Amino acid sequence: MKKKINFKNREEFTYYLFLYMKNDDKTSFRTEFLELHPTDQIDIFKQLSIEKRKHVYRYLTPAEFAEIFQGLQLTEQKTIFAELEDDFGLRMINELSADDVTDFFGNIPDSVATYLLSKLEESEANNIKLLLSYKEDTAGAIMTTEFITISPNETVTQVMARLRKEGADAETIYYLYVVNDDDKLTGVVSLRELIVAQTGATIAQVMKEQVVTVSAFADQEEVSMIIKDYDLLAVPVITSEEKLIGIVTVDDILDVIEEENSEDIGQFAAVKGALDLDLNAFVATKRRLPWLILLLFIGMLTAGIIGGFEGILAEVAMLAIFIPLIADMAGNTGTQSLAIVVRGLALEKFDRNAVIKLLKREALSGFMMGTVCGILVSILALVIPQGNLMLGFVIGVSLFATVFISTLTGTIIPLIIHKLKIDPAVASGPFITTINDIVGLFLYFTIATSLLHYL
Amino acid sequence: MKKKINFKNREEFTYYLFLYMKNDDKTSFRTEFLELHPTDQIDIFKQLSIEKRKHVYRYLTPAEFAEIFQGLQLTEQKTIFAELEDDFGLRMINELSADDVTDFFGNIPDSVATYLLSKLEESEANNIKLLLSYKEDTAGAIMTTEFITISPNETVTQVMARLRKEGADAETIYYLYVVNDDDKLTGVVSLRELIVAQTGATIAQVMKEQVVTVSAFADQEEVSMIIKDYDLLAVPVITSEEKLIGIVTVDDILDVIEEENSEDIGQFAAVKGALDLDLNAFVATKRRLPWLILLLFIGMLTAGIIGGFEGILAEVAMLAIFIPLIADMAGNTGTQSLAIVVRGLALEKFDRNAVIKLLKREALSGFMMGTVCGILVSILALVIPQGNLMLGFVIGVSLFATVFISTLTGTIIPLIIHKLKIDPAVASGPFITTINDIVGLFLYFTIATSLLHYL
Repeated sequence: MKKKINFKNREEFTYYLFLYMKNDDKTSFRTEFLELHPTDQIDIFKQLSIEKRKHVYRYLTPAEFAEIFQGLQLTEQKTIFAELEDDFGLRMINELSADDVTDFFGNIPDSVATYLLSKLEESEANNIKLLLSYKEDTAGAIMTTEFITISPNETVTQVMARLRKEGADAETIYYLYVVNDDDKLTGVVSLRELIVAQTGATIAQVMKEQVVTVSAFADQEEVSMIIKDYDLLAVPVITSEEKLIGIVTVDDILDVIEEENSEDIGQFAAVKGALDLDLNAFVATKRRLPWLILLLFIGMLTAGIIGGFEGILAEVAMLAIFIPLIADMAGNTGTQSLAIVVRGLALEKFDRNAVIKLLKREALSGFMMGTVCGILVSILALVIPQGNLMLGFVIGVSLFATVFISTLTGTIIPLIIHKLKIDPAVASGPFITTINDIVGLFLYFTIATSLLHYL
Repeated sequence: MKKKINFKNREEFTYYLFLYMKNDDKTSFRTEFLELHPTDQIDIFKQLSIEKRKHVYRYLTPAEFAEIFQGLQLTEQKTIFAELEDDFGLRMINELSADDVTDFFGNIPDSVATYLLSKLEESEANNIKLLLSYKEDTAGAIMTTEFITISPNETVTQVMARLRKEGADAETIYYLYVVNDDDKLTGVVSLRELIVAQTGATIAQVMKEQVVTVSAFADQEEVSMIIKDYDLLAVPVITSEEKLIGIVTVDDILDVIEEENSEDIGQFAAVKGALDLDLNAFVATKRRLPWLILLLFIGMLTAGIIGGFEGILAEVAMLAIFIPLIADMAGNTGTQSLAIVVRGLALEKFDRNAVIKLLKREALSGFMMGTVCGILVSILALVIPQGNLMLGFVIGVSLFATVFISTLTGTIIPLIIHKLKIDPAVASGPFITTINDIVGLFLYFTIATSLLHYL
């Protein structure tokens, strides 16, 4: 039975696995199940009831089950780990890579983590303690400690022989890091270079001395930018003394990028921390409601603005008609500029020149967009029932000013917030929108009041 | 002189390179410059004036310059290519990988591309013609045709010997694809597995028969999901007859993910196609203004709604005070739900069950958030000057209904649009916001009118 992973025969395949479990046919189950890519093993495992899962725990070795466990989400890991027998669970943890154990330990009660740490092999436990000591979202926290180091004095042949023995355990064998006697990183050889090299050559002869490295304290976003820009499969993590302490691989970076992008969008929509589809309604509400309440209070300021102009509103009720339009357009233009800044900050470093260039461009863009929108709305105001020339003029000038100024606030506010290193969630779309609403409505009513006797 | 790429000695380094060019010291320039990682070579090259660039063209071979050229942006490539002598340019193109040539050819006039194609080596030209024939953003368009295939009958030793010779040219040698006599993909061996394997074993004995593949017509987003989920360094691209025609590597996918995420944010903020910081004000305006004008016209509907209720507004001018608050909160809750759906669609496939589960959750969340916000605003309406119990009741009920319904429209509309396979830009934040404004304001005034005699 030859199996291609094409998702077509998945159901048939699952049916057979269920049958083997029903007949308690461990051998057939193992033969078929272990042929699968771990990602597919995980997919199938997730569909199992607790009874069936217990079959899996009996059928697989801790090392085999570790492949499945490492692919589960953190909340799932907690549930599953509680189902494992103590000894099986411990042995499985010993098989996980240090960065996966670290993620898991960071999510269970400290007391349990401490207990498990005390039961692990000492070298593994020390690695994990090191990783746990780094702040979340830094290179130190996402790196793995399973890498292969070689000495500059070894020959190509010697290293190849070692790879044959040790190659199966490391996170990657495609980059070999060269360290000297003080554990300092002095070079790197890719496996490709090693294979193409003369077998008798020493590593010192074939290695590249220029290694792109990151500090253990570097932000994960910086790490992902370096891996992307240099087209690397892994980047070494070093201490301030240039000692090699870990590597971050490209597959971890793919997860980081997804996470950072979710953060960008979450921040953009004031829904940070609540993007997960698996949250239940109560948790989702608990995370989203605070933003809405905060926005509600800020939004009350718009009520204050209009309240302050109640006199003119009572006289010219028509003015109310354009309140939402002014507010919407203020929000829309501000959001456009915000998106440009947020994306720019995610993809490149802004220096002073770039900021000035961007501000100039946005000012000119805002001016042009404001002019076009202002003229358009003036014309529209003429054709609606009860519209007149002066109303068109008031709304046109107001919309011009609103679009122009909203473009600038949408650009400047996130830049200032970034500069001040405040949590950028404060500059999310809805906040910029609300601030622009306040500015736009204030302009609208001020212009209308000053032109009151013409209306 | 030992150089670490730490960006600290960059200036000093560049100074020396300039000196070598000034003295026309080709040897020293080559020694220093070629030591650098291509990414750093590109960074330095980009800072050069046209005179200095011409030095570089003389100093480097076409193959060496190809490393720089492939890292330039498409607009830069056009300028630079025009500066190259015909023969140098052609030889450089022959050195580029087929996917890079394809990107470049897609961006120059057809007549020039056809001319260049006719001058290329025939096998290279055919590869490029194949790649050019695939639709943008598909696996076929982003794949490369430089991969290594092996036969199931070769031994591990034979393959290793071949890698030593051919290894330098392929895009990756870390996955070796096994094809049978009909060019059909029948298995894969990672270089790691090859190294750990017994040297006398045949490929048929060590290869994995289950290969995760993608079709040449698969969307690039699907390709990136597969690479990410299966932690691959590359994925093979096959035809419907299972013939291997290319591979997509993880470094290409990093670019795809950035591009797709920019698209998500651009769509979210109605600023699609204008996120690039390098656009000048006129181009930026040209791309953003159409969205604003469209939103302006949709926004006129809100003016229409309020216009329809002018009677009650003239009677109770206080009602105008809460217009922007209702509009803002409608937009804010809708945007939260939209972000969840957009992110969900980017990260996983929604089946019927997932959609129903999400709708239920959002309905319950919206109900709870609406209740809290409604009660809060009622209390706030009591404490403001001229506030009263009935106004508090009207605004409270309206806000509850607005938040509840906006949550649902923010969820349902993007799902429907996705289902209908319409360009999802139509469901961007500002559009959802405007639609929710219309609904919210309509509710507000309808409720107010029906309770008019109590106000």
